[in-house]
Amino acid sequence: MTDTTITGISAAQTAAEQKLTDTVIASFAATPDERLKTLLQGLVKHLHDYIREVRLSEDEWNQAIEFLTRAGHITDHKRQEFILLSDVLGASMQTIAVNNPVAGNATEATVFGPFFTQNAPEIPVGGDIAGGAPGQSCWVEGVVTDTFGDPVPGARIEVWEADEDGFYDVQYSDGRVAGRAHLYSDQNGKYAFWGLTPTPYPIPHDGPVGKLLEATNRSPVRASHLHFMVTASGQRTLVTHIFVEGDPQIEIGDSVFGVKESLIRCFETQPPGTPTPDGRDLKNHAWARTRFDIVLAPAITRPL
Amino acid sequence: MTDTTITGISAAQTAAEQKLTDTVIASFAATPDERLKTLLQGLVKHLHDYIREVRLSEDEWNQAIEFLTRAGHITDHKRQEFILLSDVLGASMQTIAVNNPVAGNATEATVFGPFFTQNAPEIPVGGDIAGGAPGQSCWVEGVVTDTFGDPVPGARIEVWEADEDGFYDVQYSDGRVAGRAHLYSDQNGKYAFWGLTPTPYPIPHDGPVGKLLEATNRSPVRASHLHFMVTASGQRTLVTHIFVEGDPQIEIGDSVFGVKESLIRCFETQPPGTPTPDGRDLKNHAWARTRFDIVLAPAITRPL
Repeated sequence: MTDTTITGISAAQTAAEQKLTDTVIASFAATPDERLKTLLQGLVKHLHDYIREVRLSEDEWNQAIEFLTRAGHITDHKRQEFILLSDVLGASMQTIAVNNPVAGNATEATVFGPFFTQNAPEIPVGGDIAGGAPGQSCWVEGVVTDTFGDPVPGARIEVWEADEDGFYDVQYSDGRVAGRAHLYSDQNGKYAFWGLTPTPYPIPHDGPVGKLLEATNRSPVRASHLHFMVTASGQRTLVTHIFVEGDPQIEIGDSVFGVKESLIRCFETQPPGTPTPDGRDLKNHAWARTRFDIVLAPAITRPL
Repeated sequence: MTDTTITGISAAQTAAEQKLTDTVIASFAATPDERLKTLLQGLVKHLHDYIREVRLSEDEWNQAIEFLTRAGHITDHKRQEFILLSDVLGASMQTIAVNNPVAGNATEATVFGPFFTQNAPEIPVGGDIAGGAPGQSCWVEGVVTDTFGDPVPGARIEVWEADEDGFYDVQYSDGRVAGRAHLYSDQNGKYAFWGLTPTPYPIPHDGPVGKLLEATNRSPVRASHLHFMVTASGQRTLVTHIFVEGDPQIEIGDSVFGVKESLIRCFETQPPGTPTPDGRDLKNHAWARTRFDIVLAPAITRPL
């Protein structure tokens, strides 16, 4: 079936290891669901190749079992350590890459994250998503088009973000909705809203995944970002973020590998007193503005 | 770093996926422990290659996260679903293969299993390990030698097994010790004991791993076996089983892939009244006998 040869291992040993892998793969041959069979046989192949390549010791195997056990035990309805693990290994982002293939000039996708909720209020174009969340006001505007450059009117744009302390509303103790909303692009595909200038924050790092990051000298911090999910008839749903140009965390490394060059935007800080696009009175506070034009790929039924 | 090309995927898409994998691998570059770095970078490579090869959907990714979560939640100090998962994917057995390389005529190793305990009583050569556990009496004898054929006197032989209902003593509710003991080979390397003729039993299959076996038409049953762990100075510790020739589960497939041809033994049933090797009175019950000569490999400091 497969044939993996590891340097420095005797032919007899290699044959014994390969025979075992083949036996396990064959054990799934009677799986009625073809897709499940493919998924499990591929998993066995890579799992066995991995064990053989790194010559995994029995002690290391034990440590892996213990790591998974700790991850399972810290996971509850509010904390999902396996998603964090997938995130910091880039597996979440690779799954997104596979399911959102490059489509010409279409805006790239990135991780969904755990903080989206269905209950975000609707705002008009130019409305405010902050809902009282603390942070620097930020004007975000752009146009939604298809890959031919034609405007997409009526696209539903969900936006959500953390406040300046790094917390999403779902992390507040009082259950209020803030830092999120949805709006629709106008007849010219244009949209605009007041949000908050994004700031960096760490993923939960007091569990086994945090320990892994620590042991590998990796930062748990996510690059500053603002979430978007854009849906429109006939177009592929886009889940993405925009990132802040000059955020040092981009260089250090976003802990979940969400950053793509094409998603980094200039957030221009405006000195106190600078007139706002819609005449809003910001009471002598500095504010920021950015532009994010969104290009939706055509809908496809299934990637590949 | 690595370079994986998937058929039918555009060059731009392949490049984007590969770049992500390379970025994640590079993120572990500053890991102080070289071995940990190797383990994690290899894990990322195979995890990403797997996602890319099977074109994992976001829904399938969600199901995997849910599976791991359920496995974590059913795991406690008595139940270890992640070990079961490793077992039924052949990962436990492959780890054993890697760490117990083929060494000439040395007896092959197999899975340790979760039922060994440190507190097994010592018996003399020819003693009884059953401790009152129900089952057919079985005389087991053999000689322990090194790979040159020289006898190994004083080898410590731990033996343990399930009773005829498929339960180990640790699964009894009353905490008694049964179906396990240790003894030492004599000055000629010989050993012998009374045990029970092994019978098949299922691994715990009321959790997510059981569901996986069901969905793939696989049996949860382990082929009938008797556990050995043999330690002797200067020799590699041997963890193995012997299996019962003619057990139909060998053909169906041992659920954890522990069976090796070289470990299958003939258990000869003796009609009631057949004289026993040591004159023991079995009160007109049938009994069985088998022979298992054990060849220990020389100790090595580290496999590879």
